[in-house]
Amino acid sequence: MKDSAQHRDVKGAILDATDRLLAGNGYKKMTIDDLAAAVGIGKGSVYLHFKSKEEIVLSHIDRIIERLKARLDDIAKKKTPCDRRLREMLVERVVFRFDSVQHYTQSLNDVLSQIRPQFLERRKRHFDEEARIFASIIKEGVDRGEFIAINAKETAGAFLIATNSLLPYSLSTQDLGERAEIEKRTLKVAELLLKGLISRKG
Amino acid sequence: MKDSAQHRDVKGAILDATDRLLAGNGYKKMTIDDLAAAVGIGKGSVYLHFKSKEEIVLSHIDRIIERLKARLDDIAKKKTPCDRRLREMLVERVVFRFDSVQHYTQSLNDVLSQIRPQFLERRKRHFDEEARIFASIIKEGVDRGEFIAINAKETAGAFLIATNSLLPYSLSTQDLGERAEIEKRTLKVAELLLKGLISRKG
Repeated sequence: MKDSAQHRDVKGAILDATDRLLAGNGYKKMTIDDLAAAVGIGKGSVYLHFKSKEEIVLSHIDRIIERLKARLDDIAKKKTPCDRRLREMLVERVVFRFDSVQHYTQSLNDVLSQIRPQFLERRKRHFDEEARIFASIIKEGVDRGEFIAINAKETAGAFLIATNSLLPYSLSTQDLGERAEIEKRTLKVAELLLKGLISRKG
Repeated sequence: MKDSAQHRDVKGAILDATDRLLAGNGYKKMTIDDLAAAVGIGKGSVYLHFKSKEEIVLSHIDRIIERLKARLDDIAKKKTPCDRRLREMLVERVVFRFDSVQHYTQSLNDVLSQIRPQFLERRKRHFDEEARIFASIIKEGVDRGEFIAINAKETAGAFLIATNSLLPYSLSTQDLGERAEIEKRTLKVAELLLKGLISRKG
């Protein structure tokens, strides 16, 4: 048990260091040697946990999404009306990612253009996992009569599509500086999407 | 007059050749020599029209968007209900771009990662121009009582944001193979967006 906790700790420390190094120098200039030095372990120890630099960055992105999903689950469990929860979840999925990578400023383009094909594949899985959380609340809204009868899974997919262009990957670093503007745009899209769902009986 | 018509012809021929070369070899491997040979002019003549390879590709993308805007204008002028025109315009903005670059398959990622910063800047202008066309129809819908009272400009911006993640730049080449799926997703988002706009009096 102690071993596996240590294993997780080192893994987490490597990902924490990755975050700092990506913020500082960007992906290209980051080396496994830098990472090992930042964590205070040997280079070989890094390779015990990750096969490659690419895998480290993808795991770092995975960790951001795991944390986001925990936040979405927390909002989903609230007792507020379903449309309010969905609005909050839409903003969270955009703003949480924004906050997670905002400090990269100059190097985000760089990171993602290096690992674009692998990143897009991984992103598809992340979206599927997010969609499940959104679909559960849309279904709840339909079941409660808060929303019109609508296919929850399809609608969840459309909700994500409609806000995906606001995620950091699609933004220039200049746009990344404007958190309030990004949040405002997300709310505007959320408002339009939700307006059509509200049951007219309500 | 003949000179300027010739000038336009050569420029158009260079962009046509760019399209073919991007489809075949991708951006990195495309040279000004290749382009000149494909058009049947000297290398110096290419530089009379364009400063750099980068500028050629950006002009090529500009031309795609000019053609798209002409199509959007045609739909905007129809006499059908405003929601139907907007639905058609949303599908057109996605599918027209898709068709324009679909034959690049392997090399689209490549092209765009090379010129990403310049491309994002140019894209912002393209979106503003598109938004004006959408806003005019949203305003018409509001004026006619087909839609609820809503800010046309803001709503047009949200319509573009909500479909921007379906544009080729955000898709993997694998996704680019699935035209019917992309169209279906666009229609689903359009349906949700428009559902909320329709006046309940109607």
